[in-house]
Amino acid sequence: MQKIKVGILGATGSVGQRFIELLQNHPWFEISAVAASEKSIGKSYREAVNWLMSTPLPEHIGRMIVQPCTPTLPCEWVFSALDSSVAGEIESAFAKAGYVVHSNARNHRMSSDVPLLVPEVNAEHLELLTRQSFGNGKIITNPNCSTIGLTLALKPLQDHFGIEAVHVVTMQAVSGAGYPGVSSLDILDNVIPLIRGEEEKLETETLKILGRMHNGQVEHERFKVSAHCNRVAVHDGHLECVSIKLKKRAKREELISAWRNFRGKPQELALPLAPLKPIHYFEEEHFPQPKLHRNVDKGMAVCIGRLRECALFDYKFVLLSHNTIRGAAGGAILNAELQKSLFV
Amino acid sequence: MQKIKVGILGATGSVGQRFIELLQNHPWFEISAVAASEKSIGKSYREAVNWLMSTPLPEHIGRMIVQPCTPTLPCEWVFSALDSSVAGEIESAFAKAGYVVHSNARNHRMSSDVPLLVPEVNAEHLELLTRQSFGNGKIITNPNCSTIGLTLALKPLQDHFGIEAVHVVTMQAVSGAGYPGVSSLDILDNVIPLIRGEEEKLETETLKILGRMHNGQVEHERFKVSAHCNRVAVHDGHLECVSIKLKKRAKREELISAWRNFRGKPQELALPLAPLKPIHYFEEEHFPQPKLHRNVDKGMAVCIGRLRECALFDYKFVLLSHNTIRGAAGGAILNAELQKSLFV
Amino acid sequence: MQKIKVGILGATGSVGQRFIELLQNHPWFEISAVAASEKSIGKSYREAVNWLMSTPLPEHIGRMIVQPCTPTLPCEWVFSALDSSVAGEIESAFAKAGYVVHSNARNHRMSSDVPLLVPEVNAEHLELLTRQSFGNGKIITNPNCSTIGLTLALKPLQDHFGIEAVHVVTMQAVSGAGYPGVSSLDILDNVIPLIRGEEEKLETETLKILGRMHNGQVEHERFKVSAHCNRVAVHDGHLECVSIKLKKRAKREELISAWRNFRGKPQELALPLAPLKPIHYFEEEHFPQPKLHRNVDKGMAVCIGRLRECALFDYKFVLLSHNTIRGAAGGAILNAELQKSLFV
Amino acid sequence: MQKIKVGILGATGSVGQRFIELLQNHPWFEISAVAASEKSIGKSYREAVNWLMSTPLPEHIGRMIVQPCTPTLPCEWVFSALDSSVAGEIESAFAKAGYVVHSNARNHRMSSDVPLLVPEVNAEHLELLTRQSFGNGKIITNPNCSTIGLTLALKPLQDHFGIEAVHVVTMQAVSGAGYPGVSSLDILDNVIPLIRGEEEKLETETLKILGRMHNGQVEHERFKVSAHCNRVAVHDGHLECVSIKLKKRAKREELISAWRNFRGKPQELALPLAPLKPIHYFEEEHFPQPKLHRNVDKGMAVCIGRLRECALFDYKFVLLSHNTIRGAAGGAILNAELQKSLFV
Repeated sequence: MQKIKVGILGATGSVGQRFIELLQNHPWFEISAVAASEKSIGKSYREAVNWLMSTPLPEHIGRMIVQPCTPTLPCEWVFSALDSSVAGEIESAFAKAGYVVHSNARNHRMSSDVPLLVPEVNAEHLELLTRQSFGNGKIITNPNCSTIGLTLALKPLQDHFGIEAVHVVTMQAVSGAGYPGVSSLDILDNVIPLIRGEEEKLETETLKILGRMHNGQVEHERFKVSAHCNRVAVHDGHLECVSIKLKKRAKREELISAWRNFRGKPQELALPLAPLKPIHYFEEEHFPQPKLHRNVDKGMAVCIGRLRECALFDYKFVLLSHNTIRGAAGGAILNAELQKSLFV
Repeated sequence: MQKIKVGILGATGSVGQRFIELLQNHPWFEISAVAASEKSIGKSYREAVNWLMSTPLPEHIGRMIVQPCTPTLPCEWVFSALDSSVAGEIESAFAKAGYVVHSNARNHRMSSDVPLLVPEVNAEHLELLTRQSFGNGKIITNPNCSTIGLTLALKPLQDHFGIEAVHVVTMQAVSGAGYPGVSSLDILDNVIPLIRGEEEKLETETLKILGRMHNGQVEHERFKVSAHCNRVAVHDGHLECVSIKLKKRAKREELISAWRNFRGKPQELALPLAPLKPIHYFEEEHFPQPKLHRNVDKGMAVCIGRLRECALFDYKFVLLSHNTIRGAAGGAILNAELQKSLFV
Repeated sequence: MQKIKVGILGATGSVGQRFIELLQNHPWFEISAVAASEKSIGKSYREAVNWLMSTPLPEHIGRMIVQPCTPTLPCEWVFSALDSSVAGEIESAFAKAGYVVHSNARNHRMSSDVPLLVPEVNAEHLELLTRQSFGNGKIITNPNCSTIGLTLALKPLQDHFGIEAVHVVTMQAVSGAGYPGVSSLDILDNVIPLIRGEEEKLETETLKILGRMHNGQVEHERFKVSAHCNRVAVHDGHLECVSIKLKKRAKREELISAWRNFRGKPQELALPLAPLKPIHYFEEEHFPQPKLHRNVDKGMAVCIGRLRECALFDYKFVLLSHNTIRGAAGGAILNAELQKSLFV
Repeated sequence: MQKIKVGILGATGSVGQRFIELLQNHPWFEISAVAASEKSIGKSYREAVNWLMSTPLPEHIGRMIVQPCTPTLPCEWVFSALDSSVAGEIESAFAKAGYVVHSNARNHRMSSDVPLLVPEVNAEHLELLTRQSFGNGKIITNPNCSTIGLTLALKPLQDHFGIEAVHVVTMQAVSGAGYPGVSSLDILDNVIPLIRGEEEKLETETLKILGRMHNGQVEHERFKVSAHCNRVAVHDGHLECVSIKLKKRAKREELISAWRNFRGKPQELALPLAPLKPIHYFEEEHFPQPKLHRNVDKGMAVCIGRLRECALFDYKFVLLSHNTIRGAAGGAILNAELQKSLFV
């Protein structure tokens, strides 16, 4: 099988690096271009990057020359790790030029003709692609890093019991802010009780993702989500304290069983980066923890624990997902695997 | 004025050390005894303690000989920083022997004849002392460290608007677990989503503290509190994300104004350790933060910020209080100051 | 091939857990017993352990019943992760009973008939086993975690240029102190400039390891080593700043080349846990770093960087090794692989 | 007494903020101007700054309008917290315009007519000012943050025993890199074994500071200094592991006594910010530690501990100093106090 040639936009940033780490040796995709901003163009990738991954920079990628983010890259698909200040226009330009764009940026997420995709949750939203008018080009987006984990945890509950309300307080890792991102002076021995724009994303993206297709459009879900977002001194892994009100009464065991038995398209299709089980429920009451569980199932699973009754809602629980794997680069690659598997 | 001689029970632990730090040069109290467990007895305090405060150990305290926790200490009042595994019996023994006991342990907190005191909030609960049958001895308790900050923030809202429901997610400092307490292996680059027993304390103590005296008894408040408690890599300062439903509609400015204008008995009486203002509200939307604000007003104030509407409750906000000053030793000393000021 | 049955002494501690992690799926060894102290005996391993590894606890190990550390375990060899307060006698008892003991404890390290083994450095020290009088039983020890990395870095320099003096300042990870080990109150936002007993170990063990066999005995090396040891807020990975005086003048490139070309018995024999290259030299001047490089070559290699001239010695450089893999459990397993490969 | 009006150059950065914190309520100086770079000019200081101090921003400073760093500021003296990329020219311009400049930047430090001042160590270097040709304007510099602590520790040893060689390995706090400075991704769970340019500063500045005046010039000291510099996850406080060779044999007690009895001009003149004792020696063998001791004597003292024999040099010990107080803003203010006390 011929591999699809892919380019990485914003390749030198922390999500760009994660794309490179996860795509080396990928059975379906092959990196044929790395692109970044002005100051890196023309340098070798090794020179241009401050490599932060704990696996070594692949030799052949290190030798690639960094190119500009213009739609002349020698590839068919692109993964975008661009900053939202520039992602909107660049991604549109690529799509118009016929590239398939798998984006991690927020710019196109809420557009009515763009899938905001979590493959286990809303694979059917890919139908929106037929509404896009880019010709062969397409834009598919990945949700915000804290939203992906939440929607994976909610989906089986929505399917079995219906959801009335969701209250979520996040404790998010510093890698979510990119590099250099959060200053060490701000986070050592500290918590920052604000991540600008994050609460809005959690409150709105969740409803689109969990929405149903109706007449070729996504009908957003209508329950209420309230979010508080905090930054903590953790490298990777977003932890979320969730309280939930269901439409239907359900026993604790039923929720756990809904989570444990949950499978989606990626599992059905055995996609390369799909976790074996999208959700791991832990009975140990001090689990999950970022340091111990962020890499469960290749960092692509959501870990859940501490399900117990809530005095105000029905239940409360804790969830964890790896914000730069499942919540960013890994999620976008899984999106691409799903698309390829269904359409190519 | 003759100072009251006080003893410290559990003097070598981290709260015990904080008592010593805060009581040196106190205008009303004078440390005349330090007591601790078996392995420290007979040693000089300097030998027995692993001093963790960033102010130096006072010389004369360092020379004191550590005594057993038996009611033969040369003092009138005791501050108890004992572990709850032993605090119950020892504190009762002291009270029966005629000592006034100001305790930081949980054992007696929920007894119907023991004040669970936050001086700005429920000074009138001291009336319960008349129901105690220890003769001259008394037991007065201090709430759990995360509860003190919460009740200070709730009190003005309760007074002005009434409270229907409170949802709180905490991010608590490691000093709350004592010394050695939380292992570095558990908390570096991590969050632990469980503090055993803590959620129950927040959910029950809050209602007693905010209760009203009626026929010489405390009528506990009846609204519902739901708590998730987490441990984070912060040295001092508990941060809490609170969502609240009020009985009466109120504007954002009214809440802020209720907080800013709030004063209690300690301010009225100008008690030595009282904060000038019990509540500091910050308009900067990334405040309060543990590292920056835990020591505001001598570590005795509660800092609040980010008041905004909540999609599920009426409002949400963030609060911070210093867990070993306001939330432990400082709180107990303020209790003692109040008691002395009213009764001695 | 029949696997050798091995037991883990001190199986519930942090090094014990690392043994279990590294031995699952080992081609030559099979865990058939887990032993620990009084309070764990009779429990299933899952119940007894506070599992700290980020890989899951293997199911079949979780079901094993924890046994006492007495020489009646159903296995042939044991790996000892015992605390030095008890390791001496227990290990001797096992050896006398005919077990081969691979120990990570310090008790027998400096005995004249016990190999203090780093397989790439002093495989020939295994000859000491013939001087042991335990019958079939044997004791082989692993150096202190900060010594292993240092001796690996020094060996090629000793071979090519000779060594006159070594000055080393360490910045050691908290996992080196076991669990619970270092209190979070002591290490968050801090450095502790003392690790009790560590400097002596570095200064003496290094000289035994680099010593030559002569008439069946180890002649310790005679150059001087001076060590300062510090504990820092790093989870895994000991970093060491080394200054060195050589016997022979040498160019920077010669040292780097000696390191890069260095291979030992484990590489020659292609032992299962052997790193492909024992030493990785980095040209990037801000490398190696604990977070980025502790897991290089399965955590079994030493990473070196910043070789430059020293105003007082000849050269200075920085080295890094994983303290609980190469520096503890992994090192002991490599010792066992070497022994098996040569003698069994 | 009329206070001297002072301006702060680079007022919004982290050292600039420390200047403001330390100068409020200063008995001799009064802040009359705050200046910063382009993007802050014209804003109120409160708007322009991301206030990182844990004491509140003084109200009247918050209202000041930020001015450009041009020599038209309404003040007589300026404290410069400018980045070295711009400090050289700006400071010269101010001096030429008649301002006295107390600089924390490295640009002028090694100029032969500029005092590189540590008041307890080399007050007599102020004589260099007579060689400056700025008219009433003057430039006085403050050493690099890790050099100040080292030279304070070395001075009494130089005076009593003479110094032959100094080997130093630093573990430096993140605040030394300014704000935002070190990325949290680089330092959480990590050590960075490089601080660009820092080793050179330690190796050269030390020799100028400890040099003697001879014919109106500084004769630099000639012993060798070798430095390794590391960045660690500590907020404030640089720790240094020092090995030293003396010219004269000396007993451990003699060194400690030389340190404890050391006093300089600032103590003699009782300057406002002078520590009571420039050096605090600790007998506890796990002291000093950054978190516990950085604020000793207002953060202006050097803390020393662990003096013991060294196998290679004569002695080794550990020292700590607060890098943004003694090592930056506080040091520059003490310089200014000395100058005022001697000349104004």
